[in-house]
Amino acid sequence: MSTSSSPAMSATLAADALLDSKRAAGQHVISMASGEIGVPVHPSLAERLAQAAHRNSYGPVAGSAELRTAVAGYWQRRDLEIDPDLVMCGPGSKSLLFAVLLALGGSVVIPRPSWVSYAAQAALAGQRTISCPVLPGQGGVPDPDRLHEEVTAARADGHEVRAVVVTLPDNPTGTFASSGTVRRLCAVAQRLDLVIISDEIYCDLVFDSAAPPISPAAFAPERTIVTTGLTKNLALGGWRLGVARLPDGPLGHTLRDRLLGIASQIWSSPAAPVQRAAAYAFQEPPEISRHVAALRGLHQKVARAVAERFTAVGTRLEPVRATCYLYPDFEPLRSRLAARHDVHTGAELTSLLLERYGIGVLPGSEFGEPASGLRLRAATSRLYGESDEQRAEAVRSPDPLSLPWIRSNLDRIGEVLTDLIGSSNRDSCSRTAPSTPPHPEGPVS
Amino acid sequence: MSTSSSPAMSATLAADALLDSKRAAGQHVISMASGEIGVPVHPSLAERLAQAAHRNSYGPVAGSAELRTAVAGYWQRRDLEIDPDLVMCGPGSKSLLFAVLLALGGSVVIPRPSWVSYAAQAALAGQRTISCPVLPGQGGVPDPDRLHEEVTAARADGHEVRAVVVTLPDNPTGTFASSGTVRRLCAVAQRLDLVIISDEIYCDLVFDSAAPPISPAAFAPERTIVTTGLTKNLALGGWRLGVARLPDGPLGHTLRDRLLGIASQIWSSPAAPVQRAAAYAFQEPPEISRHVAALRGLHQKVARAVAERFTAVGTRLEPVRATCYLYPDFEPLRSRLAARHDVHTGAELTSLLLERYGIGVLPGSEFGEPASGLRLRAATSRLYGESDEQRAEAVRSPDPLSLPWIRSNLDRIGEVLTDLIGSSNRDSCSRTAPSTPPHPEGPVS
Repeated sequence: MSTSSSPAMSATLAADALLDSKRAAGQHVISMASGEIGVPVHPSLAERLAQAAHRNSYGPVAGSAELRTAVAGYWQRRDLEIDPDLVMCGPGSKSLLFAVLLALGGSVVIPRPSWVSYAAQAALAGQRTISCPVLPGQGGVPDPDRLHEEVTAARADGHEVRAVVVTLPDNPTGTFASSGTVRRLCAVAQRLDLVIISDEIYCDLVFDSAAPPISPAAFAPERTIVTTGLTKNLALGGWRLGVARLPDGPLGHTLRDRLLGIASQIWSSPAAPVQRAAAYAFQEPPEISRHVAALRGLHQKVARAVAERFTAVGTRLEPVRATCYLYPDFEPLRSRLAARHDVHTGAELTSLLLERYGIGVLPGSEFGEPASGLRLRAATSRLYGESDEQRAEAVRSPDPLSLPWIRSNLDRIGEVLTDLIGSSNRDSCSRTAPSTPPHPEGPVS
Repeated sequence: MSTSSSPAMSATLAADALLDSKRAAGQHVISMASGEIGVPVHPSLAERLAQAAHRNSYGPVAGSAELRTAVAGYWQRRDLEIDPDLVMCGPGSKSLLFAVLLALGGSVVIPRPSWVSYAAQAALAGQRTISCPVLPGQGGVPDPDRLHEEVTAARADGHEVRAVVVTLPDNPTGTFASSGTVRRLCAVAQRLDLVIISDEIYCDLVFDSAAPPISPAAFAPERTIVTTGLTKNLALGGWRLGVARLPDGPLGHTLRDRLLGIASQIWSSPAAPVQRAAAYAFQEPPEISRHVAALRGLHQKVARAVAERFTAVGTRLEPVRATCYLYPDFEPLRSRLAARHDVHTGAELTSLLLERYGIGVLPGSEFGEPASGLRLRAATSRLYGESDEQRAEAVRSPDPLSLPWIRSNLDRIGEVLTDLIGSSNRDSCSRTAPSTPPHPEGPVS
């Protein structure tokens, strides 16, 4: 069997499995490894799925006309008008991203850090990735100047570079690029004739609705593919439904034909009953919009409360502005971690947190960063409760931080971090306050 | 964009789309291009899916323990015992077959003729296919002697050949290989160290339950991967649920790890509500077994009735013993088709049937046969009715051929074929009677 075609199991899913086995063995664990949202299905969506249980035909490969029309409406409300014929649906935006990489071919630039699966998918597709750093506090979008340098150098070395991936807002950092940076990224992509693959799965989870990120599709509509889905805004990961918006123009029509070919050979179509419920969700009726808003508020409160625990012990952390992710950097605490725990890498720090404290996070190396770094990604959505009842109450509560199970998780995180670092951390903390400008709503800590 | 990564849209789905547009334009059409079954969801499965609508977590990449245990039981009842840990579930057996090809790498042998997607999937995975003919009347399994020759020659040319695909029972021919042929195939695979990928999606649709095909997993358990799903036996194509049984042994465990890696990067897991209903289906409760038996009987009656129309005009046709597919060969009518219609290839014959008569079939070239051949694949499951009510009645009826809509479809097929060939076809017919021994239940016509 070939090794290049066989990636390790997705790191988030593997960490989840390990935590589950610890929990089953009776250990108290706090899972912040996977970004699975976990809150219950909104009743009006469960009802639509149940009503569609009799649907058993494949339907169109791109998804039903009803669903594609609803998705086009969703994007139109975000100033990204699109012909429903240029909407592609699949069993998760993950599947669509893989198909897009296969369809484009050539090498692809990905941000550093970035989601675990971009590089793994490119490897599966037999493609080379070029990792390009982001600007401080603007995760998910490669620094445009560096992008220009890297692509020019790779092409001079004979590599055919065809695309750049951006994540807007970003996983793992919980931040997003300014519109100025996105505009400059688009200008570089135009100059170098790069396709932009914009993963916007977190676009409805921006805390300050007055200052949302601007999609590259606004600046470079002829070359930008946008993907999103129901996994993050509505916690429907297990339903497997993602959508892609292809560029309006020759590239989009060529891509559409190729994606239909690929999709028809790998997955045929998304599950038909799910398509029906998804069409309702993408119409954004009032109760669904309210539900997304409630979830967004919950993410904001809990993510920022967890961020406070990390900054309190002296980690460096950009203000979290979207998603339910934090990306604290323990670099300011390097000598302390080495002296107290013989910990020198993010992987060692992750293992220590998991094995000694039962806290699951992922090291930055899973996101394409050097193994020597001490960044960790913490996903806070699993703190909302252990049962559907607790999680539903967390979504409904005006003050989720006061719910005993959430408070106990926050307290436990604080205790673990204090125990990890030792008591006298104030020195290092004051030396490592974030250097980025404060968020409009105030800095995290 | 690279061309090797961009197959044409699946031929069956493309033909379906064209027929749909003709139907929408008011033409009377008979769709025998796609093998989509089309009968309604069994109520007990729709009910389970509806009850599982609240399920929104990804769950294990391989599928839930409940589902994998049910699938292991399904195989145990077919004398193919397996550890549930060696069962992999995916969004269709199509997805699993693609993942298996990616995991194995190297070149793969496929039968000629065979299902449209094997070669397309291998091309997507960047792999070479070696097409190997089947024995007469034993579709789906490469002639073992020819397999040995082809693999030996390819290896002498420097190609790394790792696997052979078999389809048991077979699409497109509606036949299956004898146990002797399967045993010889396994012996060759053992001698040449080939993995056997056995697509058994039609295994519950064998007409004579006293003489089922024997899976290569019975003869070569250490190297055989078996796939199946709910698409064909229960008409649940649109639910997207397939399963794979990995070999019990070192190969199976290595494959499992690689498939989990690939699945976690392409599709994560099958839709969670569907998994729940599928677990119930794979337990085969009495009402589900009865439903499968009723469907099998319907396929048998209609497929054989359509086969009679084809043999009546003088095509060559192996007795149909499973599935809902026929694979008539118009070769005995070649000079007549050339003289009457200027038709010289299967594609030309297909176009004539579609455009002049509104009958959709696929040419043998879609199944890997030479373009010059005059074989066509006809899938008969779309003849059961235009509405869910008609199709449900077809499943229930003890005499479906007497239902007016099925009778009218059969009459129309007979008229079209007679008009196509002209009236005096008896000469060629008598010259071209099938040379294979009659089926135990009697010959087709």
